[in-house]
Amino acid sequence: MEKVKIGLLGYGVVGSSVYRLLTKERVRILEGTGVDLEVTRIAEMDTTKHGADAPASLFTTDGSAVVEDPSIDVVVELFGGVDAAFELISCALRNGKNVVTANKQLLANRGAALFELAREKGRQIRFEASVGGAIPIIKVMRESMFAAELHTVYGIVNGTTNYILTAMLRGEGDYAATLARAQELGYAEADPTADVNGADAAAKMAILASIAFHSRVTLQDVTFEGIASIQPEDIAYARDLGFVIKLVGSARLLDEQVNVRVAPTLVPAGHPLAGINGSYNAVLLVGHAIDEIMLSGPGAGGLQTSTAVISDIVSIVSTKTTGFMQNCSCYRALPLLAEEEMRSAFFIRVRVEDRPGVLAQLASIFGERDVSIESLIQKGHGDQAELVLITHPSPEKDFRAALEAIAGLSSVRSRPMTIRVLG
Amino acid sequence: MEKVKIGLLGYGVVGSSVYRLLTKERVRILEGTGVDLEVTRIAEMDTTKHGADAPASLFTTDGSAVVEDPSIDVVVELFGGVDAAFELISCALRNGKNVVTANKQLLANRGAALFELAREKGRQIRFEASVGGAIPIIKVMRESMFAAELHTVYGIVNGTTNYILTAMLRGEGDYAATLARAQELGYAEADPTADVNGADAAAKMAILASIAFHSRVTLQDVTFEGIASIQPEDIAYARDLGFVIKLVGSARLLDEQVNVRVAPTLVPAGHPLAGINGSYNAVLLVGHAIDEIMLSGPGAGGLQTSTAVISDIVSIVSTKTTGFMQNCSCYRALPLLAEEEMRSAFFIRVRVEDRPGVLAQLASIFGERDVSIESLIQKGHGDQAELVLITHPSPEKDFRAALEAIAGLSSVRSRPMTIRVLG
Repeated sequence: MEKVKIGLLGYGVVGSSVYRLLTKERVRILEGTGVDLEVTRIAEMDTTKHGADAPASLFTTDGSAVVEDPSIDVVVELFGGVDAAFELISCALRNGKNVVTANKQLLANRGAALFELAREKGRQIRFEASVGGAIPIIKVMRESMFAAELHTVYGIVNGTTNYILTAMLRGEGDYAATLARAQELGYAEADPTADVNGADAAAKMAILASIAFHSRVTLQDVTFEGIASIQPEDIAYARDLGFVIKLVGSARLLDEQVNVRVAPTLVPAGHPLAGINGSYNAVLLVGHAIDEIMLSGPGAGGLQTSTAVISDIVSIVSTKTTGFMQNCSCYRALPLLAEEEMRSAFFIRVRVEDRPGVLAQLASIFGERDVSIESLIQKGHGDQAELVLITHPSPEKDFRAALEAIAGLSSVRSRPMTIRVLG
Repeated sequence: MEKVKIGLLGYGVVGSSVYRLLTKERVRILEGTGVDLEVTRIAEMDTTKHGADAPASLFTTDGSAVVEDPSIDVVVELFGGVDAAFELISCALRNGKNVVTANKQLLANRGAALFELAREKGRQIRFEASVGGAIPIIKVMRESMFAAELHTVYGIVNGTTNYILTAMLRGEGDYAATLARAQELGYAEADPTADVNGADAAAKMAILASIAFHSRVTLQDVTFEGIASIQPEDIAYARDLGFVIKLVGSARLLDEQVNVRVAPTLVPAGHPLAGINGSYNAVLLVGHAIDEIMLSGPGAGGLQTSTAVISDIVSIVSTKTTGFMQNCSCYRALPLLAEEEMRSAFFIRVRVEDRPGVLAQLASIFGERDVSIESLIQKGHGDQAELVLITHPSPEKDFRAALEAIAGLSSVRSRPMTIRVLG
């Protein structure tokens, strides 16, 4: 029997759930793995939480008391934030401890430095809970895809926006109404900015891209857009054309260059991502040798996320720390592929004057830039018409140039709404 | 750098693909993991394959020459069959080698003894390729679900039958025609018996149930039915009622008893399994602490399966052989839960005389057994009518008793066709 002493940094929703689940499952984990996991120290600033479920004697308000405690084997960082967490984790690694963290902002901004320190010290840093809640996507990418030749990783990695888009699709209201409902039900935070503007998904995609392509991708490398501008009519037109709108993150490796982005995207109704509803997440791994593998499941929740933390602890205990695990990540710097070099298909919705020749005008502008139109809906609204187009894939710079020319036409009466089409 | 010498038993589709992929990716795997993987010995009975891609000097026709070779670290068993493979793997483990196998029949019949021997010898036996091709379902279940409290594992684990059912759903022909097409395209074998009668899926479900519930489940413990009796009209009626028909394997833990079975099953059109088409496989893991996690991907294919073998080799090299990995499996004996104790909903299609009172007769027989009817379609065919019913879930023994009574009615003109409904 191996005894493993665990120090928790943070005792909020996930931290307290890790404590309770470890306590409840301790005997079963010991029986199944031969490892006895025990939380022996907890750092939590909020003293009102001290003594909740766990004995008051375990608590301290001082994170460094945990990372400096020589008896602790594994430090679980759940404080969040970037700089203070970076210092604490660095200190833990320097003190020879292995680290589990759920901190996506930290990893997306300063992950490479931590991976390098872990490698130097022969220690592991694991972070399953940082992306996709209970879905074991990090472990699968790090440990099962050696021969997969991954070139694309994409999916739905933010539960709040997926909840809102699913509710809008079901006709439960517009963006503002469904966001308010998501907040009531706990699927969105009081300040939902980072979720709805795509920044949360962007941080997760930076982590997934780093692991998938063994490269250093940071949050600054990721282009992102949110869902606040999506109107119920976009969702309705998309449905009429055979699509649902999802906030899709994608990471692509093209000719040894990387492109990572997050954007609202039209997904064909028959595509596996179209069926991922509510707060669920899904990630697809695409590679020559595996075709396409999808993992889906609950993307958040204290209990769900805590199962990922516990799996990480058991994985640490059972993995040789020969530098192998550390080496898995981020050993090469790949250049970024600029957005305008990518090929994409687009959905466009725009109001125009309802008179002869306007459609011909738009079509000829697209034609001049070699952007061809795949499908079209036109609906009259008094003296105006709403035009909805889907283009075939074309270089984004050509599409953008055509769009600018169209927006400048006198017959065009609204700023064109554009949404990418999955491809 | 760690050098790992690999012996292959079998050089068919998967074996030769493992060799080629390892050779192609050797430098990249070394770069990423610090491990140099080299195939140094290959046993293959068919001497016409000797020297194909790999140097002729590596080949032997004698499997024991591989498992007795003291320089070999990992033996990869791809011979198939039960008894001879059991002897070779046992010998490899006794000689201190770690083992990778894709042999589902062996594991479903004699897995527990091999796991026990591996534990005794402090060696690992891994078998990702035995279930779900490239999908890392075994690793996820063994290493990421410690705190998940899994109680149900279900899904589509046979690509041949899923290909046939998908083709039937798309109106490409009846069972015989789509099977013939699947054989032409290589999705079904010349002798498709084990695939289409459910035995292949049953072996895989025995393995998944063993790992999920840490229990000894063998092929004999699994009830299975195949798809040969599914008619195009069953598929059409199911679609009208909002379902697709899939061959679903399920393993359930109910009150510390296990039920494992494989049967054609009506899956609601909005369920994630309904979207798994062609030869793809999908497995859902359900547990209190994780809700529901799904993994899907290609269920077969030489290249896809060989990525699973290579992942297993890398996992072996990077895992401590403290007995931990071995202990993950099969440390308890759980009693079987009899089929008739389960509750299920059913689809029934039956021809009856088209005269007043027949429907009332059927309905009252179901009513007497407390089996209630959820939906009903009746279609006239001359002096007969086709009745299609879906019941609410009820104890299977009550449903079976009602069905027997109905089959005995003089007004009933066909043997009732019954298909389970997912629930």
